[in-house]
Amino acid sequence: MTTGKMNAAIMDKPLSIEVQQVDIPTPGDHEALVRVHCIGVCGSDVHYYEHGKIGRYVVNEPIILGHELAGEVVQVGKLVTNVTVGDRVAVEPGVTCGRCDYCKCGRYNLCPDVVFLATPPVNGAWADYIVMPSDYLFKLPEGMSYETGALLEPLSVGFHAMLRGQAKPFDRLLVTGLGPIGLLAGQAAKLFGITEIYGTDTVAYRRELALEMGFTAVFDPATEPVGERLETLTGGAGITLIVESSGNGRAMNDAVKLVRRGGRIVFVGLPATDTVPMDMGALIDAEIDAYGVFRYANTYPAAIQALQRSTVDIEKIITHRYSLADIQEAVETARTRKDTSIKVMIYPNHRSINS
Amino acid sequence: MTTGKMNAAIMDKPLSIEVQQVDIPTPGDHEALVRVHCIGVCGSDVHYYEHGKIGRYVVNEPIILGHELAGEVVQVGKLVTNVTVGDRVAVEPGVTCGRCDYCKCGRYNLCPDVVFLATPPVNGAWADYIVMPSDYLFKLPEGMSYETGALLEPLSVGFHAMLRGQAKPFDRLLVTGLGPIGLLAGQAAKLFGITEIYGTDTVAYRRELALEMGFTAVFDPATEPVGERLETLTGGAGITLIVESSGNGRAMNDAVKLVRRGGRIVFVGLPATDTVPMDMGALIDAEIDAYGVFRYANTYPAAIQALQRSTVDIEKIITHRYSLADIQEAVETARTRKDTSIKVMIYPNHRSINS
Amino acid sequence: MTTGKMNAAIMDKPLSIEVQQVDIPTPGDHEALVRVHCIGVCGSDVHYYEHGKIGRYVVNEPIILGHELAGEVVQVGKLVTNVTVGDRVAVEPGVTCGRCDYCKCGRYNLCPDVVFLATPPVNGAWADYIVMPSDYLFKLPEGMSYETGALLEPLSVGFHAMLRGQAKPFDRLLVTGLGPIGLLAGQAAKLFGITEIYGTDTVAYRRELALEMGFTAVFDPATEPVGERLETLTGGAGITLIVESSGNGRAMNDAVKLVRRGGRIVFVGLPATDTVPMDMGALIDAEIDAYGVFRYANTYPAAIQALQRSTVDIEKIITHRYSLADIQEAVETARTRKDTSIKVMIYPNHRSINS
Amino acid sequence: MTTGKMNAAIMDKPLSIEVQQVDIPTPGDHEALVRVHCIGVCGSDVHYYEHGKIGRYVVNEPIILGHELAGEVVQVGKLVTNVTVGDRVAVEPGVTCGRCDYCKCGRYNLCPDVVFLATPPVNGAWADYIVMPSDYLFKLPEGMSYETGALLEPLSVGFHAMLRGQAKPFDRLLVTGLGPIGLLAGQAAKLFGITEIYGTDTVAYRRELALEMGFTAVFDPATEPVGERLETLTGGAGITLIVESSGNGRAMNDAVKLVRRGGRIVFVGLPATDTVPMDMGALIDAEIDAYGVFRYANTYPAAIQALQRSTVDIEKIITHRYSLADIQEAVETARTRKDTSIKVMIYPNHRSINS
Repeated sequence: MTTGKMNAAIMDKPLSIEVQQVDIPTPGDHEALVRVHCIGVCGSDVHYYEHGKIGRYVVNEPIILGHELAGEVVQVGKLVTNVTVGDRVAVEPGVTCGRCDYCKCGRYNLCPDVVFLATPPVNGAWADYIVMPSDYLFKLPEGMSYETGALLEPLSVGFHAMLRGQAKPFDRLLVTGLGPIGLLAGQAAKLFGITEIYGTDTVAYRRELALEMGFTAVFDPATEPVGERLETLTGGAGITLIVESSGNGRAMNDAVKLVRRGGRIVFVGLPATDTVPMDMGALIDAEIDAYGVFRYANTYPAAIQALQRSTVDIEKIITHRYSLADIQEAVETARTRKDTSIKVMIYPNHRSINS
Repeated sequence: MTTGKMNAAIMDKPLSIEVQQVDIPTPGDHEALVRVHCIGVCGSDVHYYEHGKIGRYVVNEPIILGHELAGEVVQVGKLVTNVTVGDRVAVEPGVTCGRCDYCKCGRYNLCPDVVFLATPPVNGAWADYIVMPSDYLFKLPEGMSYETGALLEPLSVGFHAMLRGQAKPFDRLLVTGLGPIGLLAGQAAKLFGITEIYGTDTVAYRRELALEMGFTAVFDPATEPVGERLETLTGGAGITLIVESSGNGRAMNDAVKLVRRGGRIVFVGLPATDTVPMDMGALIDAEIDAYGVFRYANTYPAAIQALQRSTVDIEKIITHRYSLADIQEAVETARTRKDTSIKVMIYPNHRSINS
Repeated sequence: MTTGKMNAAIMDKPLSIEVQQVDIPTPGDHEALVRVHCIGVCGSDVHYYEHGKIGRYVVNEPIILGHELAGEVVQVGKLVTNVTVGDRVAVEPGVTCGRCDYCKCGRYNLCPDVVFLATPPVNGAWADYIVMPSDYLFKLPEGMSYETGALLEPLSVGFHAMLRGQAKPFDRLLVTGLGPIGLLAGQAAKLFGITEIYGTDTVAYRRELALEMGFTAVFDPATEPVGERLETLTGGAGITLIVESSGNGRAMNDAVKLVRRGGRIVFVGLPATDTVPMDMGALIDAEIDAYGVFRYANTYPAAIQALQRSTVDIEKIITHRYSLADIQEAVETARTRKDTSIKVMIYPNHRSINS
Repeated sequence: MTTGKMNAAIMDKPLSIEVQQVDIPTPGDHEALVRVHCIGVCGSDVHYYEHGKIGRYVVNEPIILGHELAGEVVQVGKLVTNVTVGDRVAVEPGVTCGRCDYCKCGRYNLCPDVVFLATPPVNGAWADYIVMPSDYLFKLPEGMSYETGALLEPLSVGFHAMLRGQAKPFDRLLVTGLGPIGLLAGQAAKLFGITEIYGTDTVAYRRELALEMGFTAVFDPATEPVGERLETLTGGAGITLIVESSGNGRAMNDAVKLVRRGGRIVFVGLPATDTVPMDMGALIDAEIDAYGVFRYANTYPAAIQALQRSTVDIEKIITHRYSLADIQEAVETARTRKDTSIKVMIYPNHRSINS
């Protein structure tokens, strides 16, 4: 049995995180203790770190952040059957009630009673260990890295976007916004067999990374006539599916005009403003489908299955690596170097990391 | 064979329609000649009458308007097999190419080469006769009136909205805007087995008619707290499906907040403004589906089948009746008495009508 | 708090049921105690009563049967929030794990760890009281009877068949086999807006009841040319959807030939033989969809919603009523009078019933 | 304009094909003349060659067979806009009416009035030239070979099977029967992102070719315990989707038991017998979906899009190549060397081919 103390990165107030010693938690009957191998820094973590809140979620007490992780099972409760000690697992971070109608019909991401890691007041996993109900742990197949396991979380958003948008291999896709979510939405698209994938972002580094990760072509929407380019590149056939991950109001409205008649738009990126001026007449006239995306459901086993024999490499989005001891530097990197840091990965249980 | 002259209502310029004698058209091999029994006045007809154009469609030459009709087959081309002389038929008014990918995949309403009755420069059917390709004619079953046949056109929009919105009998529906389209969307909902149907409109007459036509409850959005009422009336369960048919910007944005998490919104009514301020954050956070609706596809046989043994009565929306000779008065009624005229019906081939 | 003893009908061996006094169970934190108002006799109950087993499920110890029930909540566990003492509720009888991938994706009826009332060794509810997890209790709206609440269980099978078969109001439906499941599948179809519903059964009483319950026409497949009749009655348009609930091998194979090209068949009735000779060439050539149905998922709130304002009356299938004291007579009625008993209803907590 | 005579392979009676000179056809307004570059020998061609009929289709007069082709547009009718002289095109061989409800709803493969190349009495394209309506011609993108264009026809069957079976990248697929259709169904699966693809066939050469074409593992169902192997290889997770392309009765029935609960089976291969003994109880108990497949619809542009930037190579199934002059040898190869000839390709307009 694993007992005693562990390191955990505790944020007591905005802009201040300190690694402290806390008790290693003990798993209940249906739970398992996971030694965290690596865990990403998400935009939401950075936002809590900087502002102390996101919308209605406010950090009122010291909190451990972090929810994109993979690790090793080191202890299991007595009723656990799906994993065993020694298993390498990815951790799905949102625990849902299982009793409401959303849970029962398969859309558990809409469960009103979800307990989500690193969403105040729930602690996350920037720590050596974490306890989770075992049905939120998914075994990584041989050859799939812990990093890929941790990245299943942001990949899940893109994967869910593909499912929501009914992606087909014959879609011509545009991804607007090439941060971690947009880049991984592109990879999810490749998993769904899509081969013609365009991307837009104003940041050059992101566009370059997108090309490296297999996007067909990328544009700077600030300087390039995206519509014309797409018209030419698709031979007039047009874009059938858009994943909007920038949250930029103009990009959201442009989507309605960039997609072909009868096309589909999946909205993922949250806008900063209360409303966005949208050309609803065009949405109606072109009979567009628009789908909101909130997190994901049932994506972990699906994405693992889709990834495991594929050539898709999602680790390319990791630009920086830090040990847990250097957590504040890690988060500052994510916060201040937005142009060149895509995904910062933390390695608890590792003394030092050369990023 | 039917030859000679017929009456046709020709609009030569805005606000001026005159009944003239024109040649009765002759059907080609795959076509049929239909004697028009009755034909509705649509909002688009009134708009062309008033403004001489709708968006990019401009009335440059004298035109016959009207596209909501039913009548009797009086002559058929030599290759016609689906209808025969004497058949009572509804007429689907949009003739599509059959060759483009939209036509081939079943979404022919998006065909770029559609020829739609009463859309300049194509003539409509405010006339004694019209020629149509026979596959746009649908036999009315015994006991189904010509009026119902003519109203299949606006009903089709609501019926298509139900299909787009994946209506199920366990939906709790809100229809915003209770003009002809909204009222008939409510009837389409009843055909789909939906039993809990709410409606909003600022016009009292429309709300009353909605109640008569089986809506569960109606509200004036200008004076009533619609969200609270719906919360109470649904016992907290919430609205699962909204059909927005008002085209009002505020109603469009409110829809995003009135539907429950994971709900669906079908946008039918075209807004008058280029953009509408929309709470896209709420659409994303609540993982809403939004569907545009442009006309309809494959609804005529489906709606006839659904209607024929049902208790749904769509003729209740007919508030006024005129002969073709009184066409200008008919159109003026539709134009100027918006509060009390829902659907004005024209009867060519009838000397006089007591409305 | 409700404590003490209650009556329960205990089957100790085939053909022998005796009402005994047992302890009233106590609800756990997430559970509620329900006083059973009425509970149906299902074909599976009769089969256990007669043969002591169904397939791999064997009655090895005394068991309480019965799983189609509604009653009143008389006590709730401390974490229960969805129901309260005094609520009239229908009881969904299959408790699933909530942790497997079937449960998580919304198809919990396929959960391998389901605990289903009256499936050995799990007790059912032919008793005064039963304890259930509260999320399996669904409030009956005002005006909906306990009988209807109890019948939600067999109705759910037909309702699920409609969902599996993507029923639309413009379907032309054939139900083969007019026992409780087939008759209620017809009522489910009406809830989905279907108006043209044909039925076949060799038992005259069932066909007559089907007509009373709103079937369009019924046939005796042993003596009538069903295909020809349907061809005539549908005007050559053909059957688009079949629900096969007889389990008869010939009916199963005929379904492939009775449905129109591109049609859908939902197979519900289990055949008595290991294999059934099926015209698979016809299934392929006509590009038919065939769907198996195993119980149901997410149907209770949906069916309550669909039923509550509708004109559909499912209680018409109740042909006999008994008190719990007369349970053996009740089950014998169901067992031996198959031609005239459709649904036998038991009323625990009632001294005597005049059927 | 292309006029004069051309070579065409005319089958006047079974087992006898002769190349003759016939008139080059002239395209109508909506048609194009295509110079055939290559055209495959299909199992149906061989069947007509051997038996003179398939089911209700009987060769009563001399006929030109062949319907899997690609070529160059050499002349277009005056209303043709989608292709131009010099375009390299694949030819979809089934011309449908465009007027029936199947055509209008997007399932034109079920059109009762389809005119399909090489289905008596309609001629096919084992000839130098063929005239087709231009909307059945699909431009091949740069870099896509004529051979791939011709193979779009059999690929379409597999592609349609993926669409019918709602293939997702996280499916675990079994293809039973590894002839041209089964092998190409495996390639279609790869286009849909599926990475775990098993195959069964009793012929060693076909199994080897399947492995070369990217199948994960293959089995001889006559000697290997397929169910056990799949259980082991999938780690107990089971097969989620089966494409049955063998037409073997035992394989058809085994499919019901080899797929996991809630799985999907697509039946493509026509059985040789009137009925097949099927375990319908298992289909019901496991709530399986079974889909028939008859040809395909809307697959040409979709498959071209999916293929064009992918790594999937469908030409690997071409095992033999012949000029039109050697047509009888070509067909005899397909007929008599079933173990080693998968796809035989004919090259009209080429003097000689070294296979």
